[in-house]
Amino acid sequence: MSNKPRVSLAVVKRLPKYYRYLGLISDRGIIRVSSQELSKITGLTASQIRQDLNHFGGFGQQGYGYNVEELKNEIEKIIGIDKSYNAIVLGMGNIGQAIYKYPGFSENSGFNIVGLFDVDKNLVGKTMLGNKIQHIDKLETFLKEQKVDIAVLSTPTEVAQELCDILVEGNVKGIWNFASLDLKLPKSVVLENVHLDESLFTLTYYLNNLEDYPGTKN
Amino acid sequence: MSNKPRVSLAVVKRLPKYYRYLGLISDRGIIRVSSQELSKITGLTASQIRQDLNHFGGFGQQGYGYNVEELKNEIEKIIGIDKSYNAIVLGMGNIGQAIYKYPGFSENSGFNIVGLFDVDKNLVGKTMLGNKIQHIDKLETFLKEQKVDIAVLSTPTEVAQELCDILVEGNVKGIWNFASLDLKLPKSVVLENVHLDESLFTLTYYLNNLEDYPGTKN
Repeated sequence: MSNKPRVSLAVVKRLPKYYRYLGLISDRGIIRVSSQELSKITGLTASQIRQDLNHFGGFGQQGYGYNVEELKNEIEKIIGIDKSYNAIVLGMGNIGQAIYKYPGFSENSGFNIVGLFDVDKNLVGKTMLGNKIQHIDKLETFLKEQKVDIAVLSTPTEVAQELCDILVEGNVKGIWNFASLDLKLPKSVVLENVHLDESLFTLTYYLNNLEDYPGTKN
Repeated sequence: MSNKPRVSLAVVKRLPKYYRYLGLISDRGIIRVSSQELSKITGLTASQIRQDLNHFGGFGQQGYGYNVEELKNEIEKIIGIDKSYNAIVLGMGNIGQAIYKYPGFSENSGFNIVGLFDVDKNLVGKTMLGNKIQHIDKLETFLKEQKVDIAVLSTPTEVAQELCDILVEGNVKGIWNFASLDLKLPKSVVLENVHLDESLFTLTYYLNNLEDYPGTKN
């Protein structure tokens, strides 16, 4: 795997989309699919699709297309959702709770939520779907005792960098950040941002500058 | 405004970031800032910053830099957050509620939430922060009587396209979509997606392929 070419963010971002569409196709009982057919469904060009999938070894056969189940399983492996991850949520406000309860982020999907943290007196000590919310002061000790792969950061902006430092120190491998700031962290820790404000402002920008709007790009 | 050059998505996505940093700088009482100083804070290069801001007329003066308050106000206007928007939320599950309660999406920020919709018997009729949740069956009639600029789509995937069609028909101008699908809609309606699954899978991909991870890019 170490000799494979570097894969661009754009390609990586399209993999979940392929995975999603292959799931839909598979649910309909379809066994094989051509890049042309995938193109029709996804809105991407067939050549783009072939190129993307070639990054990972190219599973298709000329004149046959792709075996839907096989390709889906391969992409599952590439994305890493055939594995399981220990995750914690920092900040159990509205966003934190929504992410915690988000079906795509559950044990069924390979994510074991092993800890919830907050500072709010009304939340700390409360049990939510089988997990007790702990005080954030316990985070450092918790990370010494428990292997954590992913931390959801859904705290107020002001404390996010400080908590991020504790997470890095505690060997957390990836941070799913919902706080509205640019975290500073070593390259060995993966950061994925969901910046709601930037998303909303992109929407308002295009509402006011429709001539710049590129349209929907799948 | 109609003769200005087309602005790329990448630039548009950086504007909220500038706006956020200018807010922080302004809060510290700083009156003017150079592109070099902005570069240090944002992690973008000074030339990138100058180029970005030049798209909108370039507010800086050689040797003086930018007036913080002025630049912030200008970006506010460019992003369109000096205006107010009527918004509705479709789907008052965990994500819908979190977005509804998100401070950046409130009357203070120029977003008037004028309607909430769901199908759940336990939710319909309930009042939440001053808005009564209505049955989604009322949506079509509602849109005939009430001007709506932005609809948050946080329903299950299966009904999202159908509701999207009703929104388009009802003259909604922008859709902030949290459902995990690629909506089809005319180019005159602005779509902004927050695909949580794609974000999470990007994180797991890089956790498993750290050699591909580009690092944090502000």
